[in-house]
Amino acid sequence: MSHGTGVHVGDRARREIVVAASIEDVAVRAGVSTATVSRALRGLPNVSPETRRRVLAAAHALDYVASPSASSLASGRMSTVGVITPYLGRWFFGTVIGGAEAELRVAGHDLLLYTIGGEGHRYRFFDQLPLRRRVDAVLVLTLPMEGDEVEAVRSLGMPVSIVGARVEGFSSVRIDDVAGAELGVRHLVALGHRRIGLISGGRTESNRFTAPTDRSAGYRRVLVEAGLPVDPALDVDGEFTVAGGERAMAELLGRPEPPTAVFAQSDEMAFGALRAVRRAGLSCPGDVSLCGFDDHEMADLFDLTTVAQPVQEQGVLAARQVLAALSGGEYPQASVLPTSLVVRGTTAPPGSP
Amino acid sequence: MSHGTGVHVGDRARREIVVAASIEDVAVRAGVSTATVSRALRGLPNVSPETRRRVLAAAHALDYVASPSASSLASGRMSTVGVITPYLGRWFFGTVIGGAEAELRVAGHDLLLYTIGGEGHRYRFFDQLPLRRRVDAVLVLTLPMEGDEVEAVRSLGMPVSIVGARVEGFSSVRIDDVAGAELGVRHLVALGHRRIGLISGGRTESNRFTAPTDRSAGYRRVLVEAGLPVDPALDVDGEFTVAGGERAMAELLGRPEPPTAVFAQSDEMAFGALRAVRRAGLSCPGDVSLCGFDDHEMADLFDLTTVAQPVQEQGVLAARQVLAALSGGEYPQASVLPTSLVVRGTTAPPGSP
Repeated sequence: MSHGTGVHVGDRARREIVVAASIEDVAVRAGVSTATVSRALRGLPNVSPETRRRVLAAAHALDYVASPSASSLASGRMSTVGVITPYLGRWFFGTVIGGAEAELRVAGHDLLLYTIGGEGHRYRFFDQLPLRRRVDAVLVLTLPMEGDEVEAVRSLGMPVSIVGARVEGFSSVRIDDVAGAELGVRHLVALGHRRIGLISGGRTESNRFTAPTDRSAGYRRVLVEAGLPVDPALDVDGEFTVAGGERAMAELLGRPEPPTAVFAQSDEMAFGALRAVRRAGLSCPGDVSLCGFDDHEMADLFDLTTVAQPVQEQGVLAARQVLAALSGGEYPQASVLPTSLVVRGTTAPPGSP
Repeated sequence: MSHGTGVHVGDRARREIVVAASIEDVAVRAGVSTATVSRALRGLPNVSPETRRRVLAAAHALDYVASPSASSLASGRMSTVGVITPYLGRWFFGTVIGGAEAELRVAGHDLLLYTIGGEGHRYRFFDQLPLRRRVDAVLVLTLPMEGDEVEAVRSLGMPVSIVGARVEGFSSVRIDDVAGAELGVRHLVALGHRRIGLISGGRTESNRFTAPTDRSAGYRRVLVEAGLPVDPALDVDGEFTVAGGERAMAELLGRPEPPTAVFAQSDEMAFGALRAVRRAGLSCPGDVSLCGFDDHEMADLFDLTTVAQPVQEQGVLAARQVLAALSGGEYPQASVLPTSLVVRGTTAPPGSP
């Protein structure tokens, strides 16, 4: 938009009283069909650069503005997908949303973001569902919903995809958290460890999330299979944060009989745990082996052995699920993505130098 | 919403032909005023829990849905703030958006997120401004806009706040990047370093961002003040990524006369640089001192000396700026937040053991 044709701040009042130009006005001025105007303005293919320039010039000259709200009231489509997430700043959530956003953008959809903070806000959110009439579809990230919440989301009558959990009747993209945890703990058992601690992802606020529950189940299952005792004193809550992981590892190292290896349910907790090892004057893996979960972008920097999960891809696939549902297309509506063990420098047989 | 009163999936078609309940219907059924219905449904204070329950029960029984789009066409307000960001997954951007989102949520505003990816998308975005008629205000994160882009955003006639840059005529929240870089480089000079390298934040795609330009200017100014040469061979692009920082440090360490200290324009680049030092069989700060910029949540884990900036707070203040503008209230419309030096273990005098 150039200085010559742009609408300036001072024009605001005036703009509100003039009759808005229609798409037909733009089509006449540009000498093309209204369909071509629509395609050119939405940036769709099959419009030549020259035609596109002509349409944009005409739209600017007439101060034409396509109104998504007005047109959506007619079409019933908002071209917007709502994303409900418990966190924003954390790596996993930012990365999933980034993947979904890129996929939705290409399809011409905007992303309306809802962070569900504390319980009070959560209650209000599911009770009032501000998504109604604002979005065409919903992605829910890792948030396990209770019966009434599931009914509330279902009542929207929209495509819904859940990332990191499974809810009957909705599409989902997730990993097998039990199997992922088994991979990591089996690696520690195979190295010869018999006393293996767990830094879990929380029992308090996050006890409704399935990932920590499933990863704890995988840990216990491998110990039982290997004939090892499941010692509750070796299972400490790290709250899915770096600081929580540090506290948990300090607690484990302070036990009368500390573990020789630890499985942390997230890499961020493992980063904190590494620091607790250093602070205690110990070495990893010399004194204690450590395996994380995620393959966080910094896991490589910490030389951390971990269970890798595809994170951005979960956002991409969830976006594709709702896009397919909106367009009536076919797409797998329940994806379980593979995890894999990435062995780096923080795991070794017990008593290694 | 309970099973008894909720609208179920199968009801969707029917719902579309029934006449929607009005706010007056809800008020009559609940025995309160329409103003109270509105307050109760929006979760505002000054509504007793008992009244709120009665309003919600009435709204559910009547299947009443407040329509933000329809009401906004009348009021001209969308209760939505658009956020334009160049990245989502990166820590700085996720943290700023988290701060803004929390502040906007309390004020009853939703957040519509636009990630401006490559140049092609950027061009289309500013040309078409999909924000029109969808949002009441705009936050722009660090994205330096060119003349036409500034005019395009101005033409929206909405409150706009820029985080991390300054554009004439818009509100802004930022740090003084020149002064921040000076803090870090002066610390290295004060320790006795005379050959100080720079890992900058990019010359290619990000050369329109002001942060790398300003931080480079601060670095050069301190060297000149201290009578030290500014050697272009010691200024390497790290692209604001961990991997880029590692490559840049490897390049600096491979110079015939490597620096004894390095200033990295972001902590993420510094994390990568630390790895390059280790991979070269060298130690930090024994062989080379390193100072970062940000005080990233993991800087402490790496024991990294850095220039701290308040990140979440920048999002909070930018949100307050546009909220004040929307409500006609007073609020400082140009905030420059302080930076501070955090000395940890990666900096020492040259030749320290």
